[in-house]
Amino acid sequence: MRTRAAVAVAPGKPLEIMEVNLDGPKAGEVLVEIKATGICHTDEFTLSGADPEGIFPAILGHEGAGVVIEVGEGVTTLKPGDHVIPLYTPECRECPSCLSRKTNLCTAIRATQGQGLMPDGTTRFSMLDGTPIYHYMGCSTFANHTVLPEIALAKVDPSAPFDKICYIGCGVTTGIGAVLNTAQVEIGAKAVVFGLGGIGLNVIQGLKMAGADMIIGVDLNNDKKEWGERFGMTHFVNPKEIEGSVVNHIVEMTKTPFDRIGGADYSFDCTGNVKVMRDALECTHRGWGVSVVIGVAPAGAEIQTRPFQLVTGRVWKGTAFGGARGRTDVPKIVDWYMSGKIEIDPMITHTLTLDEINKGFDLMHAGKSIRAVVVF
Amino acid sequence: MRTRAAVAVAPGKPLEIMEVNLDGPKAGEVLVEIKATGICHTDEFTLSGADPEGIFPAILGHEGAGVVIEVGEGVTTLKPGDHVIPLYTPECRECPSCLSRKTNLCTAIRATQGQGLMPDGTTRFSMLDGTPIYHYMGCSTFANHTVLPEIALAKVDPSAPFDKICYIGCGVTTGIGAVLNTAQVEIGAKAVVFGLGGIGLNVIQGLKMAGADMIIGVDLNNDKKEWGERFGMTHFVNPKEIEGSVVNHIVEMTKTPFDRIGGADYSFDCTGNVKVMRDALECTHRGWGVSVVIGVAPAGAEIQTRPFQLVTGRVWKGTAFGGARGRTDVPKIVDWYMSGKIEIDPMITHTLTLDEINKGFDLMHAGKSIRAVVVF
Repeated sequence: MRTRAAVAVAPGKPLEIMEVNLDGPKAGEVLVEIKATGICHTDEFTLSGADPEGIFPAILGHEGAGVVIEVGEGVTTLKPGDHVIPLYTPECRECPSCLSRKTNLCTAIRATQGQGLMPDGTTRFSMLDGTPIYHYMGCSTFANHTVLPEIALAKVDPSAPFDKICYIGCGVTTGIGAVLNTAQVEIGAKAVVFGLGGIGLNVIQGLKMAGADMIIGVDLNNDKKEWGERFGMTHFVNPKEIEGSVVNHIVEMTKTPFDRIGGADYSFDCTGNVKVMRDALECTHRGWGVSVVIGVAPAGAEIQTRPFQLVTGRVWKGTAFGGARGRTDVPKIVDWYMSGKIEIDPMITHTLTLDEINKGFDLMHAGKSIRAVVVF
Repeated sequence: MRTRAAVAVAPGKPLEIMEVNLDGPKAGEVLVEIKATGICHTDEFTLSGADPEGIFPAILGHEGAGVVIEVGEGVTTLKPGDHVIPLYTPECRECPSCLSRKTNLCTAIRATQGQGLMPDGTTRFSMLDGTPIYHYMGCSTFANHTVLPEIALAKVDPSAPFDKICYIGCGVTTGIGAVLNTAQVEIGAKAVVFGLGGIGLNVIQGLKMAGADMIIGVDLNNDKKEWGERFGMTHFVNPKEIEGSVVNHIVEMTKTPFDRIGGADYSFDCTGNVKVMRDALECTHRGWGVSVVIGVAPAGAEIQTRPFQLVTGRVWKGTAFGGARGRTDVPKIVDWYMSGKIEIDPMITHTLTLDEINKGFDLMHAGKSIRAVVVF
C-alpha cells in the first residue's frame, strides 16, 4: 500500500512530507493506522544529526496512537479495530529481561530495532523509487500507517482520545514511571525535578500521585514556574537567581528542625545535561538519596562525581520508558487518564497537521510548546 | 591514667610507641581496655598523608575488641566487664539517620568525630607534656586503653576471642554487610568482586552465605586465587592474563544459553581505584545490574561513566561499614562467627605485639598479609 509520511531524508534537514510504499505485516506483525503522534526531543536529537546511531532516510516518531488495520500470521493478541499505542520498548514476556521481573528493557528485538529494521532484518517502508526507508525506535509514527511487531503494541481503551493518549507512548509514561517504578517514591518524600519540560512536568505529576510533601522544580526559565505549579510543584528554583550552588540551595531548603543534614530524598534529571545530573545526585540526602537519570545526554558525554557520594549512601540510577512494561502498564496509564487520575490535556499545547510537522520542531526549539501533536 | 599507645606523630612517619595520658570517661562515655586490634588500609591511608582529613598527632586504629573498664555518668547499656567492639559508625537510635530506617550512617557525633574529638569537642588523649593527641574515627584502637561514646560500642558475646572478632569492627562487617545489607544479593545470583584483599574475601564469604551461583574474583595477583577459593570464589580473573577488556570478559563469562546478553547481577569494588569502579559498574547486567563501591578512593579522584549505563538499568551505589548498624548487627556477626556460619581465623595471617605494629604496615605494603592483628 501507499501512505503519507514525514521522512527524515538527511541529518539536519527538515522532514519531507511524501507518499511512501508500505509493505503489509509479516508474521507476528501488525499494520496500524496512526491517528495522532507527539513530537518528542528524542526525535529532534536524531533529526539534528547529534544521535550517533541515527540512520537515514528514516521515518521518525515514537509517540503515537492508532487503530489496528490488519494483523500478520500468528498474531493472537490483537485484531483489526483495536486501539493501540506503539511501544519503542516492547514487552515479549519471554526473553531473559522480561522474565527477570527486574527490568522493563525487553531484548527480544533489540538488535534489529537499533538498526532501523523489523525483526526479520528488512524494512516495510520504501521510497516510491524503491529506496528502503528505515524504521525508527521500532515505531515510525510520523506516518499515517506503520507496521510494528505485535509485542510492540499496547491495546488500550477504545474510548480514549488519540490526540491525548499518544503522549502516553513516551513522555507521560517516562515521567510518571520514573517516580512510581524506578524511584518508588513514598508518601511524605521530598523530591527535586531538574528541567520542567514535557518529561519534568510528568515527573511532577507522578510525585503528586505518590504523595510527595515537597516537589521542588528547577529550571532556568521562570515561565516554567506556573507550569510546574499547575501539576503539583510546591517550590521553584531558578539557578540563575540564587546565591551559591543549586546543590547547597536545595540542601538548605530541605532541612527541617529535626533533620539538620538536609538533601532531597529523590531527584530526577530531565535535562540530559551531565553537569545537571551531577547536581541532581549531590543534592540528595546523605544515607538514602536516590537520583534518577531520565534525560538523554549528548554522544560521548559522561557523568562524574566523587565516589564518596555513593559511599555515604546516595544511589545513582536511570530509567528508560519510566521502567514501564509497555503492554502491561501503558493501558493502565490510559485508564488513569480517562478516570482523571492524571492530566494530559493542558500539556498538549499545539495540534498540527502532518504537513505542519516541521513547525512542531520550530516550536520545540523556541521553547514555546510543552507538547505539539500531529493529528492525521 | 596512663596507657601505652602507637602514636601517629606526623604523616608518612612510622608510628611511635609511647606512654600517653588518658582522661577518664565523661558523661555518656566509656573507658575500654583494648585487647586486640586489626591494621586496616584506612589506617594506612591516613598515616601515609594521602587522607586530606588526616589530623596529627593522632592515635589511629578502628578495628578493635576489648573490655569495658569504667563507664561515665548516664551510661546505661554497658557496665565494667562487658566485652565490646568499637564502632567508627555509631548507632544512637535517635538521630534522623538512625530513625530513617534507610541508612546506618548515624549522624549523632559526626561533626566532632571528623575533627578527631570526643562529642564534647575535646580529646581524652595527650602526650606526657600535655600536647593533645587526636582521636581517629572515634575509636583509636592502637592504644591499650581508649575512651569512646556509649553509642559507639557494640556489646558482644564474652566468650568470643578478641584477636579474631576485632576484625568484625571493620573488614568482616564491611564485606559481608555490602552483600547482605547494601546489595541484598539473592540466591542464584552472579557476582563479581574486584580486589581480593581483606574486604574482598569477606565479600566473597558474604556471597557464599547469600547463595550466589557464580562468585567471580578479579585481582592482578595470582596468589589471590587460592585465597578466594578458600572462601567460596568459583571463578578467578587476572586482568593481565586475558585478551581484551575485563568488562567484556565478565560479560562473556556470565552469558548462558538462555541469556545471551550477559553481565553480573552484582559487582563490588574493593580496590579504591576509580577506573576499576567504572569497570565494576559496566560489567553488570543491562536492566538490573547493581554495582557497590566499597573501596576508598584517593583524595579528589572521581568516578565516571556514560549516563547510558544507568538509563539502561544499572544502579551505582556505595556502602560504608557494610550498611551495618553497629550496635544491632555487629553482635549478630560475632554470633555467626562463634557458630561457624562465617570464618575469620584463616584471614588473620599475622599476630603482632604493639611494639611490632609498624611491621604490620610493612606486611600490608608487601601484600603479604590479609590481616595483621596486634594483641595487647
